[in-house]
Amino acid sequence: MIKVGIIGSTGYAGQELVRLLIQHPEAEIVWYGSRSYIDKPYADVFQNMFRIVDDVCMDDNMEALANEVDVIFTATPQGLCASLVNEEILSKVKLIDLSADFRIKDVGVYEKWYGIEHKSPSYIEEAVYGLCEINREDIRGARLIANPGCYTTCSILTIYPLVKEGLIDPNTIIIDAKSGTSGAGRGAKTANLYCEVNENIKAYGVASHRHTPEIEEQLGYAAGYPIVVSFTPHLVPMNRGILATAYASLKENVTDADVRAAYEKYYGSEKFIRILKPGVCPETRWVEGSNYVDINYKIDPRTNRVIMMGAIDNLVKGAAGQAVQNMNLIFGLEESTGLDLVPMFP
Amino acid sequence: MIKVGIIGSTGYAGQELVRLLIQHPEAEIVWYGSRSYIDKPYADVFQNMFRIVDDVCMDDNMEALANEVDVIFTATPQGLCASLVNEEILSKVKLIDLSADFRIKDVGVYEKWYGIEHKSPSYIEEAVYGLCEINREDIRGARLIANPGCYTTCSILTIYPLVKEGLIDPNTIIIDAKSGTSGAGRGAKTANLYCEVNENIKAYGVASHRHTPEIEEQLGYAAGYPIVVSFTPHLVPMNRGILATAYASLKENVTDADVRAAYEKYYGSEKFIRILKPGVCPETRWVEGSNYVDINYKIDPRTNRVIMMGAIDNLVKGAAGQAVQNMNLIFGLEESTGLDLVPMFP
Amino acid sequence: MIKVGIIGSTGYAGQELVRLLIQHPEAEIVWYGSRSYIDKPYADVFQNMFRIVDDVCMDDNMEALANEVDVIFTATPQGLCASLVNEEILSKVKLIDLSADFRIKDVGVYEKWYGIEHKSPSYIEEAVYGLCEINREDIRGARLIANPGCYTTCSILTIYPLVKEGLIDPNTIIIDAKSGTSGAGRGAKTANLYCEVNENIKAYGVASHRHTPEIEEQLGYAAGYPIVVSFTPHLVPMNRGILATAYASLKENVTDADVRAAYEKYYGSEKFIRILKPGVCPETRWVEGSNYVDINYKIDPRTNRVIMMGAIDNLVKGAAGQAVQNMNLIFGLEESTGLDLVPMFP
Amino acid sequence: MIKVGIIGSTGYAGQELVRLLIQHPEAEIVWYGSRSYIDKPYADVFQNMFRIVDDVCMDDNMEALANEVDVIFTATPQGLCASLVNEEILSKVKLIDLSADFRIKDVGVYEKWYGIEHKSPSYIEEAVYGLCEINREDIRGARLIANPGCYTTCSILTIYPLVKEGLIDPNTIIIDAKSGTSGAGRGAKTANLYCEVNENIKAYGVASHRHTPEIEEQLGYAAGYPIVVSFTPHLVPMNRGILATAYASLKENVTDADVRAAYEKYYGSEKFIRILKPGVCPETRWVEGSNYVDINYKIDPRTNRVIMMGAIDNLVKGAAGQAVQNMNLIFGLEESTGLDLVPMFP
Repeated sequence: MIKVGIIGSTGYAGQELVRLLIQHPEAEIVWYGSRSYIDKPYADVFQNMFRIVDDVCMDDNMEALANEVDVIFTATPQGLCASLVNEEILSKVKLIDLSADFRIKDVGVYEKWYGIEHKSPSYIEEAVYGLCEINREDIRGARLIANPGCYTTCSILTIYPLVKEGLIDPNTIIIDAKSGTSGAGRGAKTANLYCEVNENIKAYGVASHRHTPEIEEQLGYAAGYPIVVSFTPHLVPMNRGILATAYASLKENVTDADVRAAYEKYYGSEKFIRILKPGVCPETRWVEGSNYVDINYKIDPRTNRVIMMGAIDNLVKGAAGQAVQNMNLIFGLEESTGLDLVPMFP
Repeated sequence: MIKVGIIGSTGYAGQELVRLLIQHPEAEIVWYGSRSYIDKPYADVFQNMFRIVDDVCMDDNMEALANEVDVIFTATPQGLCASLVNEEILSKVKLIDLSADFRIKDVGVYEKWYGIEHKSPSYIEEAVYGLCEINREDIRGARLIANPGCYTTCSILTIYPLVKEGLIDPNTIIIDAKSGTSGAGRGAKTANLYCEVNENIKAYGVASHRHTPEIEEQLGYAAGYPIVVSFTPHLVPMNRGILATAYASLKENVTDADVRAAYEKYYGSEKFIRILKPGVCPETRWVEGSNYVDINYKIDPRTNRVIMMGAIDNLVKGAAGQAVQNMNLIFGLEESTGLDLVPMFP
Repeated sequence: MIKVGIIGSTGYAGQELVRLLIQHPEAEIVWYGSRSYIDKPYADVFQNMFRIVDDVCMDDNMEALANEVDVIFTATPQGLCASLVNEEILSKVKLIDLSADFRIKDVGVYEKWYGIEHKSPSYIEEAVYGLCEINREDIRGARLIANPGCYTTCSILTIYPLVKEGLIDPNTIIIDAKSGTSGAGRGAKTANLYCEVNENIKAYGVASHRHTPEIEEQLGYAAGYPIVVSFTPHLVPMNRGILATAYASLKENVTDADVRAAYEKYYGSEKFIRILKPGVCPETRWVEGSNYVDINYKIDPRTNRVIMMGAIDNLVKGAAGQAVQNMNLIFGLEESTGLDLVPMFP
Repeated sequence: MIKVGIIGSTGYAGQELVRLLIQHPEAEIVWYGSRSYIDKPYADVFQNMFRIVDDVCMDDNMEALANEVDVIFTATPQGLCASLVNEEILSKVKLIDLSADFRIKDVGVYEKWYGIEHKSPSYIEEAVYGLCEINREDIRGARLIANPGCYTTCSILTIYPLVKEGLIDPNTIIIDAKSGTSGAGRGAKTANLYCEVNENIKAYGVASHRHTPEIEEQLGYAAGYPIVVSFTPHLVPMNRGILATAYASLKENVTDADVRAAYEKYYGSEKFIRILKPGVCPETRWVEGSNYVDINYKIDPRTNRVIMMGAIDNLVKGAAGQAVQNMNLIFGLEESTGLDLVPMFP
């Protein structure tokens, strides 16, 4: 059994990690970290876990934790993981960071978009960007995983094959993304109250959202050169789910068959990526509770653009599920172990 | 492997059966019955099942089906199961009926409340009421299971120990129940459109809902004499979940300890019934997607009433989960096989 | 024009007062009080008011305010109004308090249920309970109005005629109430976040909610003797609306005609109370945005109980609308002035 | 008083027309047309209108209706208005058509996108596109108004000034629009059931939605030459509201000040268009129930694109409110008569 510690287990992503890991046949959670709820029974915070989890919440002591577990997940705000990590810890345990601290290779870009100083820049180079379908081989040998962001997972996977194959002009990419409200976290903010979110849709972080450089970096690797994209997130009155609607201009003479072939080439044998039948649009409800990414596209001959669409559950493939997928890869397990979750509808 | 056929697999309860059974280690669905979608791929109806279920929908031929499977689930409107069942079928397969056809022992009561003629009254006597925590032993040997209704499962389990132990006056029972909208089915009715249900709460079927006699019959067995109750269902703008808030007058000198002891006596070792800590109210979100029943109560010394509260997922413990639990019992499996579902939140 | 000051204008009830009063032909808001947002433009807090309200938020100085306005509305947490009121203020302005401070005549009951000391008990006797349909005459001459609570308005109006006419046994009354989430206020609490409230229903404050003694006091006046009731509130995932489902045992030989006659006697000529056609259940959506109370009942001959149902918009008839109705009465205006709001659906 | 007849008064747009017109000081509804509910009391269909509207539903006889009213609103599926209109009718009454029949000047484009034959092409030329802020003068003298679509109203108004002033390249316009579910109508379709829409977001009609040519035609007039745009609608789990997020490449050297000046030039004195403060994103909740259009933009210097955002209530400015605005213009009333609706929140 892999012994697991979670720092930040009482946020939405942390709790989803718990849900997945207690159903994982090869893992065992031994540390429920939560600075806000130290000594409180975990199931008092999340009543769904009553009679399932008996543990109490522990503090954030990563050094102590490193002696007790095989892998640490940090599901905490940006900055925390970078402030705690050190060589001794990395020599003892694997670290899968769900925050943004190690996702961006250029520390200057990180510091500019996140507005904070990076406390451990020396580990950025080593960290592997844990987008399993693309970086699978590097992940297997990693000590430190930068688990991708929710919007970025959905956006990159939706667009990647067309950039990689050179079918679209990457600098025409516009991503209009829509997220359920669990993506906003469990902090007590007026803006996230039920009556403020319900019966509303809004854009936010327009031309300034922090997931933008992460998308650009990864798609830039696929393109082979730096690119810039437009990325606009929106808040949707639902609990879970991200839908990315992405637009790009097709290169000359690209056909529908070319586009489908590109998706098939990269994802045809991927378990968690479902390329839908022609004409079927991804919907977040069909992936809810699961690790699937549903993807499809439509070519508009009038504008010569392709509209690419992808849907994920932001808490699973966009956070906890992908983190477990990374853990499975690192520890040499079948990649889908504990992730055979059938989407729950309605 | 138990071979399973489902008649009515494209309603909400039928689809939930599919979700549970494809994750069940000892069962295999070989017949996806759906009169409305014959020959259509099942995953075209429920896109969540894409690449998980490859079968096409079949018709409702119970006789043909009886030759191919070990157990048939009927998740169809009342009247259908009773019109199809016969001795030959029951000699070949087990039958778990999710409709109301065999729940009520007095055929006159059934015909009065449901307003239809019962086509197979001769099987009513044999049918076992499949409320597992109460009728476990009878279920094991049954050929024909009447799977309880969603409201009734929640209401009966919430109240049962106090009636059984004689702590309350059964004729003072008032059940005010609230259900998510999946309980209204997948039929295309104006009243169930998004904009009609959203931002609204209403009572319906006041003093006339068909689950009333079912509750009365079962609680009457517990009391040892016939009883009448008030039962009022309400429609809540959410997908899943039933909350029953039940009121009754305590018999003289009944203490809080007596009430808790009664719950512990009947449910203390039940896997799927969670008696919550004192002061914690059941909430539907904490059981969503799972087979749990969360129960608690509060005594009001000012009125000498006890307020009993129970929460279930109407599609799991209130329908498909309980049906699988019944199947497990009939086939001698561990009762919780395939039902170790951790509630999903948020 | 009646000059109006609002203390607590940036809560949900306060903002609803603003919405109603800026559409009121005889009133003018001159003071938007909000301790939390002093000097901030009101329309920056509530963007719906952009280009409609140009004022900035002011502090809570009731003494200063008393010199500038004809009427003060306090839409603040309990305790504040009682701590600010004094004879000089009441000699200058009318005061309509939307909090609970002056609703309960017995200060001991208030202090017990609210757990705070009452700072101005000497004004309790004078205060008039502002349930317009019942206390209309007393309201006209009042200086200090205790605007009723949201649950209480709905509960009392739903039950009152049957108690007043002696058709039910008041001590058998059980009120199961359901409220939209705006009733929980605009404070930043984890429990009221979108993802915590959405897809859930729960009871809270069981056998201990503060609106209980208020209901008991008012219905006790109608009965002519003290009564106790069971009252259980529930939180519903919707913005607005309260539905009260109330149960009581009918006195001997009471007929359906008697019950209907009682409702007609008290409400037949009331503009804001709509007694629905037989068989039609009140639904919160049909009163949303308006000052209406929709009421109906069903007699259950099997249990000899009557099920009474009432629906209001908690922010209008349950708070701001009723407050304006009280203002109209005090200032000798047509009672419905500014309240001819057609319910908005969907 | 303007006598009004409504054909199609029991759809969502029709009912909203009723809500607005019964609060309109200069209009009186004398014909509630509804083929589905002939002879049924209107308030039995929409219970919010109980005791407000006493009329029963009438059939769709436009010829009879033309003799009784001054203006007819048709809130019916495409094709119906075109099949009923004739010269005699237009000689007697004004006709405001909320369907698409007369919005598109090129009948071939209409027939191609809508897939039906146009029954009255001879009136297309005469019909005035009723987007009040842009075509105000033509509307005043019109007999036949083509009331704009909901998505188109929002999209065109959001983008118009920048096209008109030549600040953006119109052929780079990408509109990603999100609509509440009332836009899908009141027909009983499985896809619009509560449980199908709730907790989900999806695109639909990708590269094929019928509002596309309407947007292109109107923005083409502004540009002075034909253009093509990408338009993708999405269905959001909320009752009301449309948000359009539109992207376009700025022409060289266009500054933020240029963009703001363009908006101010066209909308600075428009009552119903609110250009928000810099940095504030439009949200549908802030216009709910009102005729407002909230608009803002953000320039992204990294991509040299402008992101334009607009929010409306689809049933008001996107349908019934704009229809009333057109009626006011035609009959020489103050344009905002009956439309001074303060947005309702929450």
